[in-house]
Amino acid sequence: MKLIRWGAAGQEKTGVIIDDVWYDTSAFGGDYNEQFFNDNGLERLEQFIAANKDSLVKVPEGSRLGSPVARPSKIVCIGLNYADHAKETNAPLPPEPVIFMKSTTAMVGPFDDVVIPKNSVKTDWEVELAIVIGKKATYVEEADALDYIAGYVLHNDVSEREFQIERNGTWDKGKGCDTFAPLGPFMATRDEIKDVDNLRLWLTVNGQKMQDGNTANFIFNVPFVVSYVSQFMTLLPGDVISTGTPAGVGLGFKPPVYLKHGDVIELGIDGLGTQKQQVKNYVKD
Amino acid sequence: MKLIRWGAAGQEKTGVIIDDVWYDTSAFGGDYNEQFFNDNGLERLEQFIAANKDSLVKVPEGSRLGSPVARPSKIVCIGLNYADHAKETNAPLPPEPVIFMKSTTAMVGPFDDVVIPKNSVKTDWEVELAIVIGKKATYVEEADALDYIAGYVLHNDVSEREFQIERNGTWDKGKGCDTFAPLGPFMATRDEIKDVDNLRLWLTVNGQKMQDGNTANFIFNVPFVVSYVSQFMTLLPGDVISTGTPAGVGLGFKPPVYLKHGDVIELGIDGLGTQKQQVKNYVKD
Repeated sequence: MKLIRWGAAGQEKTGVIIDDVWYDTSAFGGDYNEQFFNDNGLERLEQFIAANKDSLVKVPEGSRLGSPVARPSKIVCIGLNYADHAKETNAPLPPEPVIFMKSTTAMVGPFDDVVIPKNSVKTDWEVELAIVIGKKATYVEEADALDYIAGYVLHNDVSEREFQIERNGTWDKGKGCDTFAPLGPFMATRDEIKDVDNLRLWLTVNGQKMQDGNTANFIFNVPFVVSYVSQFMTLLPGDVISTGTPAGVGLGFKPPVYLKHGDVIELGIDGLGTQKQQVKNYVKD
Repeated sequence: MKLIRWGAAGQEKTGVIIDDVWYDTSAFGGDYNEQFFNDNGLERLEQFIAANKDSLVKVPEGSRLGSPVARPSKIVCIGLNYADHAKETNAPLPPEPVIFMKSTTAMVGPFDDVVIPKNSVKTDWEVELAIVIGKKATYVEEADALDYIAGYVLHNDVSEREFQIERNGTWDKGKGCDTFAPLGPFMATRDEIKDVDNLRLWLTVNGQKMQDGNTANFIFNVPFVVSYVSQFMTLLPGDVISTGTPAGVGLGFKPPVYLKHGDVIELGIDGLGTQKQQVKNYVKD
């Protein structure tokens, strides 16, 4: 299944994509949140869709997409998980995964604007494969880790490099600004992605290819990452783990290149659709 | 007011402390969560208590206390915010606040066990003053910051130093283990704390005084911290900011001293009550 959430920001309704058509599943009840994943929601939703196949209502044309999963208890991110990206940022290859956290208030939809924060001069992009956790995970073995995954989603791990690196740590300071976590367009359930270790992912700015990588180049692959994070904190159903970005971020250019008002970011991963964001300067509401 | 949440873990009901007596306020409805703080819950609760003063039911004797606030969207922590603590950990005085995040799955009640994680050899204590945010805060001016605070709560920012410092960053890796955030016994509303910049805070292990500080020694005080964090991420009602710990943590001893099975931690802050935790080794459920 491909899950979506659609409608005005903060008032999203649930839906699914079947054969490229968006259907409203709000009659199923509830949101795609911790309770949904915890209560076997994916299986129940599949049954609901099968039972109501002929009466499902289409999502109105032109509807906005929100994040395909509701605000989770946390977004955990893995840093420097592609060797080429570690190299471009002058970081040594990590002996074990770097973990940081992203404020969940950063979440937006896949086509929403990315807002350059006040006082930012180094806002950067990062195309990433993100994992959605399906059930509570504590000290999970690597061999069992896939069982704890509900699905996958495309994530632009937008990052302010000055805040992240030069403003007296930790990285969290440059990762959680509003609009810094576009997620979507949809969450693909695990069965939809045949080989998560072989997905091309790419990102362009104003049409120019900046990132073009493949999850085959992960230093730490998906099962390892889920198992690893669960050694340090309990993962709840619906939690998101973002698995790191390949080479080609703005910080890696010589001299570095950062986002400015009016830029357009597009990104995608095999099987997980594409995103497109307009970059805007912060304006007080 | 002094807010409490009581009952079995995960099923806490709300209450208040009036003249040292615990009263059940579950008839008020809802939890002490984002919605409560956002919808002017403190004022409405005060009215509810005034209107029902004679019929309030006492909390059953011997009830467990949970965290006095429900799971927030995030727990943001300030590192190295007392000069004496920065010195003992061999860290330079921070030119601006260190920010890190703590997984909210770490939250427990003030008298619950602290569990030493699997493979941990350096579990440490940190008595801290924590702030509970009362309304949505983005780019808040320091002069206005107090208006965004609902109240204060005692926090033991339990930390695994090897995970935090020696396991290839960031600090988040050693801060979010299960049971690493005992909060409570109560949240005091802002009006209950006359001078937040002059509160003694202390911690003992097995009766031996380890920490004995005062918030007068903050490098960055409460309004500055709230304003500062709000420059990097939006704070939601109910969010928790923990303001850092004074000298006397286990890492600061020569040689360092860490928690072990059977230890007893007690801690307190002027006006915010005391906590007591038994330290236990991790045992699989």
